Amino acid sequence: MKRREFLTGAGAGLASAAVAKPAIAQSAPDVRWRCTSSFPKSLDTIFGTSEYFSRMVSELTDGKFQIQVFAPGEIVPGLQAADAVTSGTVEMCHTASYYYVGKDPTFALFTAAPFGLNSRMQTAWNYFAGGLDLTNDFYKKYNFLAFPAGNTGTQMGGWFRKEIKAPEDLSGLKFRIAGFAGQMLARLGVVPQQIAGGEIYPALEKGTIDATEWVGPYDDEKLGFQKVAQFYYYPGFWEGGAMLHNFINIAKWNELPKTYQAALRTASEAAHAWMQAKYDAQNPAALRRLVAAGAQLRPFPPAVMDACYKAANELYAEVSGKNPDFKRVYDSIAAFRGDQYLWWQVGEYGFDTYMIRARARG
Amino acid sequence: MKRREFLTGAGAGLASAAVAKPAIAQSAPDVRWRCTSSFPKSLDTIFGTSEYFSRMVSELTDGKFQIQVFAPGEIVPGLQAADAVTSGTVEMCHTASYYYVGKDPTFALFTAAPFGLNSRMQTAWNYFAGGLDLTNDFYKKYNFLAFPAGNTGTQMGGWFRKEIKAPEDLSGLKFRIAGFAGQMLARLGVVPQQIAGGEIYPALEKGTIDATEWVGPYDDEKLGFQKVAQFYYYPGFWEGGAMLHNFINIAKWNELPKTYQAALRTASEAAHAWMQAKYDAQNPAALRRLVAAGAQLRPFPPAVMDACYKAANELYAEVSGKNPDFKRVYDSIAAFRGDQYLWWQVGEYGFDTYMIRARARG
Repeated sequence: MKRREFLTGAGAGLASAAVAKPAIAQSAPDVRWRCTSSFPKSLDTIFGTSEYFSRMVSELTDGKFQIQVFAPGEIVPGLQAADAVTSGTVEMCHTASYYYVGKDPTFALFTAAPFGLNSRMQTAWNYFAGGLDLTNDFYKKYNFLAFPAGNTGTQMGGWFRKEIKAPEDLSGLKFRIAGFAGQMLARLGVVPQQIAGGEIYPALEKGTIDATEWVGPYDDEKLGFQKVAQFYYYPGFWEGGAMLHNFINIAKWNELPKTYQAALRTASEAAHAWMQAKYDAQNPAALRRLVAAGAQLRPFPPAVMDACYKAANELYAEVSGKNPDFKRVYDSIAAFRGDQYLWWQVGEYGFDTYMIRARARG
Repeated sequence: MKRREFLTGAGAGLASAAVAKPAIAQSAPDVRWRCTSSFPKSLDTIFGTSEYFSRMVSELTDGKFQIQVFAPGEIVPGLQAADAVTSGTVEMCHTASYYYVGKDPTFALFTAAPFGLNSRMQTAWNYFAGGLDLTNDFYKKYNFLAFPAGNTGTQMGGWFRKEIKAPEDLSGLKFRIAGFAGQMLARLGVVPQQIAGGEIYPALEKGTIDATEWVGPYDDEKLGFQKVAQFYYYPGFWEGGAMLHNFINIAKWNELPKTYQAALRTASEAAHAWMQAKYDAQNPAALRRLVAAGAQLRPFPPAVMDACYKAANELYAEVSGKNPDFKRVYDSIAAFRGDQYLWWQVGEYGFDTYMIRARARG
């Protein structure tokens, strides 16, 4: 292990300085990595996941493997995080795969497919149904490998200035939503808008857009949407469980000692669970506050969901016909989903159904 | 760090052998621990969680911290795992807290309370709502601390030789179910039976008992219950998300280098998520096979659930009145549960509801 190579990125020329060190020191070299995040620090649950991950890696390696987390713009813009890993500008990033749908629609499927998997299913698919192998087989083209690193759970459908009572109400709707989900909604006449986080509120206030989706109560609350778009729809059926990843440059990964690889992998797994738990704990109180502040909760009408479901399936078929990678991954998800909901409706859903009814009765 | 103390358990007398080693070696001593599991190897998802955990700890420490996992009976019987940790016979165990309800009913709440939290909520309560602090504050009396280490998800309600159509059908029912859940059901006339895993099938076959609960499809299938009790009820409302723990002797924990503590904690967190994902992936196919083999799926009738819910609440109130520890923990769980289902019914449940209906339509 070439200690200075990690410290400076200067490569083999400086490595000889480490040769005289005893074997035990060489197995635990000082390594410094940079992790660029796609998420602003204001999304403290998501950004905090990287900070938690980094702290764990440090603790696992007696402080020898340090991963510094950077906010978007400090090294590269948030949506260029994956490119920075591909090129080796940074060793790793924390990002959402579906941001890169412009490169290949297959990227969308690893985060959340419309009408796809919920959070637990997404984790199970990754680790025990070949999902992570499919993921990393695909990512190889981009010089990185990935580990799951957080999930938001089912997101909200977003904030609408007018009620959505029928599929026709989607026609012409200027909705801030990106990527693959935007393509699905476009089939119903939605005009998808791509707007950065900080610019959504004024756009919604002025009526430049009619609606926006963001994450869930805890994150949405910070942006204050309830003041300018009171109808708060659920569920976010295009993100039943939006999973984030750590992307890691393959060459940089291969240079790590095995114990540091283990630290990175295990800390990713733990951070993955940490983020979901943190969102679960924070969302309820935020939802209460939003409703108290005037948000009107609305479920999407079944006819709207049905029309979107049909559009999603058409889109899946269309893209699958043109893109074998997409087809391979989507077919795996769809088969897994069918089995999962067979069981889910029995155990989990049966329990949740009773508990929700019991709570409503008081 | 006294290397030989860990290797032999012989204490300070042999520790001087390590003194001459350089500082770096002392920060990464060879440590060997024993983890006794309460679960037979045949429960490969649960036993496998300890094996996965142990492998990760080894990988994180370059093979220097080895935790050997023992099946019940190899060191102590499965239900004496906690005692073996309290006494320091073993450094740690993998177990279900509710096995120790005979010592104090508070133990029941850390695994799964009837009509308590589902799996994700249980994790969130532990890490972000003070649950793990309450847990470890209580466990101090027993000389151990704990980390969450796996969850089964909502279990099945079990196998019944006759249908349960009304609360009255529970009266006199000889049901293999233990601990706190057994006490709840006893209020409705159930005669709880405690029978070890291997003896359940013959007891059910002969009619010595009328029903049994076990875990979920994947584990239940191995014991072949569908051949002798065809009605397979759901949900297991007394185990909406049964969480297991690693119990760790506090003195042994304090002797560990910080990096090994970090390895133990992080590997526990990762193993915790691993087990839930593995059950999620395995249960659906097992459920299909069970139904193909003759199992008749039945939901518990609402009136039966309501009667049990009432009995559970009476039991909670009664025990809370006598046991301040129990009251403190139960109140925390109940408050958290109320908030959780407020949010759950919007996001997660809304999504799952649509997906289950879409699947049923084909």
